[in-house]
Amino acid sequence: MVRLDIPPAVAAPPDATVTVALGDRTYDILIGCGLLARDAPWEGLPRARDAVIVSNETVAPLYAERLSQRLSAQFARVHSVVLPDGEAHKDWMTLNRIFDALLENGCDRKTVLFALGGGVIGDMTGFAAACYMRGVPFVQVPTTLLSQVDSSVGGKTAINHPLGKNMIGAFYQPQRVLCDLDTLRTLPGRELSAGLAEVIKYGPIADPAFLSWLEQHMDDLRSGDAIALQHAVRRSCEIKAQVVATDEREGGLRAILNFGHTFGHAIEAGLGFGVWLHGEAVAAGMVMASELSERLGMAPTGLTARLTRLLEAAGLPVRGPAGLSPQEYLAHMRVDKKAEAGDIRFVLIDGEGSAVLRPAPDGLVAQCIEAHTAPA
Amino acid sequence: MVRLDIPPAVAAPPDATVTVALGDRTYDILIGCGLLARDAPWEGLPRARDAVIVSNETVAPLYAERLSQRLSAQFARVHSVVLPDGEAHKDWMTLNRIFDALLENGCDRKTVLFALGGGVIGDMTGFAAACYMRGVPFVQVPTTLLSQVDSSVGGKTAINHPLGKNMIGAFYQPQRVLCDLDTLRTLPGRELSAGLAEVIKYGPIADPAFLSWLEQHMDDLRSGDAIALQHAVRRSCEIKAQVVATDEREGGLRAILNFGHTFGHAIEAGLGFGVWLHGEAVAAGMVMASELSERLGMAPTGLTARLTRLLEAAGLPVRGPAGLSPQEYLAHMRVDKKAEAGDIRFVLIDGEGSAVLRPAPDGLVAQCIEAHTAPA
Repeated sequence: MVRLDIPPAVAAPPDATVTVALGDRTYDILIGCGLLARDAPWEGLPRARDAVIVSNETVAPLYAERLSQRLSAQFARVHSVVLPDGEAHKDWMTLNRIFDALLENGCDRKTVLFALGGGVIGDMTGFAAACYMRGVPFVQVPTTLLSQVDSSVGGKTAINHPLGKNMIGAFYQPQRVLCDLDTLRTLPGRELSAGLAEVIKYGPIADPAFLSWLEQHMDDLRSGDAIALQHAVRRSCEIKAQVVATDEREGGLRAILNFGHTFGHAIEAGLGFGVWLHGEAVAAGMVMASELSERLGMAPTGLTARLTRLLEAAGLPVRGPAGLSPQEYLAHMRVDKKAEAGDIRFVLIDGEGSAVLRPAPDGLVAQCIEAHTAPA
Repeated sequence: MVRLDIPPAVAAPPDATVTVALGDRTYDILIGCGLLARDAPWEGLPRARDAVIVSNETVAPLYAERLSQRLSAQFARVHSVVLPDGEAHKDWMTLNRIFDALLENGCDRKTVLFALGGGVIGDMTGFAAACYMRGVPFVQVPTTLLSQVDSSVGGKTAINHPLGKNMIGAFYQPQRVLCDLDTLRTLPGRELSAGLAEVIKYGPIADPAFLSWLEQHMDDLRSGDAIALQHAVRRSCEIKAQVVATDEREGGLRAILNFGHTFGHAIEAGLGFGVWLHGEAVAAGMVMASELSERLGMAPTGLTARLTRLLEAAGLPVRGPAGLSPQEYLAHMRVDKKAEAGDIRFVLIDGEGSAVLRPAPDGLVAQCIEAHTAPA
């Protein structure tokens, strides 16, 4: 009797590739299931004696050993640096632990760093790579939805300063981004939702059809359907790649990726970083920014209500935290990197899938905040 | 009676300009007397609300007020940050004082930084500019000979790490370099000599005629003759500009600018940074590197003796410090940024005005160190 060895019918789509076209800094984003279980996705990286995996206390126990095995086929020495988890540690002291490890192990300027984790790990590893010996190559291995669809793509790296988030950093592109969708299975639901905030963002600023698709597939996404997740990650990366290729250093267009972020950053700063997840703050921030766009007569009527429903379906907050006053928002906004000479500039929706950056009157901004703040 | 208002016959040559050709990062080096006393050299810089002068406790009292007056014609707000003086402070903590000042003053991402001082100030200000909000423009105003002929040109910025010098930094080009030769009048003789080490360096690696010129004009240079100084600064900058334009990110050729530096860094690290001036360590390092080149049959015979005479005439040490063993040199050299997988690579002279980067046997390196070390 012949038994056919047919694999079970799991929903594992073939790998997708998105290219970020940046001249001699061009790189690919690979999106698929089981990337950490296969050698091929890791081949063809810059050659070096040393590879250094940078991860955190949550992610390292899950995936660092598997990544280390993959890399040992190509690098004579594979080191690991395990950092404390969380936005609160995205500071110089923690960054310096990466430099310590690199220097203690005698890593030279060809060493390749691997960021294994979420946005904080990606931002810190990328900034460490940008600065170590004035620049070594690095690879993003994002393990959260938020970092797969946003922070690992585009080369923005940074650490926080006590007086402002992401104030110290560099534009520094990775060699490759490897999004293993399987890693999302270990992601807590609250963090999956936070990542969905950045996915949803791409609809109003760039793609009305994607916004509709999200409205139809939110349940699939939250239940971890691989085909739906791959589509969401790929479409997000495609939009981001196109924006970044047009405006790598945020001279103009790129700022639209910060839809909801000016309000969101104020929420994060006002509550203290880490109380709300970044994606949660961006969710409430998008509602406020949409409201502001509508009140200025720019956005399609009803966008705010539509966004609110979608964000709620994604399990996200749609109102700012009680007790944070408009004045506090405005004070934090004035030190936002997008501010110029103290003038706050907002990403506003000015049509279906279209956004612009411009200032708005303080009074109107305050009204929008008040309209979407939770009661005390 | 008519009195002609003829100025006294001071030796003030017209300004010289050297262009560093780096595509959209191209900039000019202006070399002349009295630049701080005139408005024209400061015009045409990027427009912004804020200018920030970064200087140290030694230089700020001499020139910060004058620079502030110049800048107030173009910037609504001119801030100053005064750092402690010296290589020992070229660290993260001191760098962070620049970030603190920028954020406390609400400086936005158009803010222009001005590095007013020597190499340490230039390196730290440049690195702060590279990182603040992921990059703001900066201008070099070098007030030491060493920084005018070397560190302010070419975009290498960095801070030190306890385990290695200049280990954390960026390639980041200034908008302009303004070398006011008048500022050299307040430079202590020991520091003028240290700067001459980097001037002399350009002879053996790139320009035999310049080496001969230096042998003929060393007295003029040490006595502060403006025409001689301008020629030395200009020729040094021309050579460096050409090398940097060919190899901005130190892929190969640029490494020749580090002639004597592998030995020199070992001296600095071995004694503790700041005991010898950088230029002093490079001087003794060049003698050792020249000896190594001769023993390998690469350099013109007699180069080491000739360099030794010239360095002595410049008031520089030509022997390594007593008590620092070859083994200590070698240990420090292995963490040099030019090392690859632990192999030390040296800049060696392989002809008149020509240098290459290559490894050398440890034993021979040790002999060269011993041959040029001061007796205990």
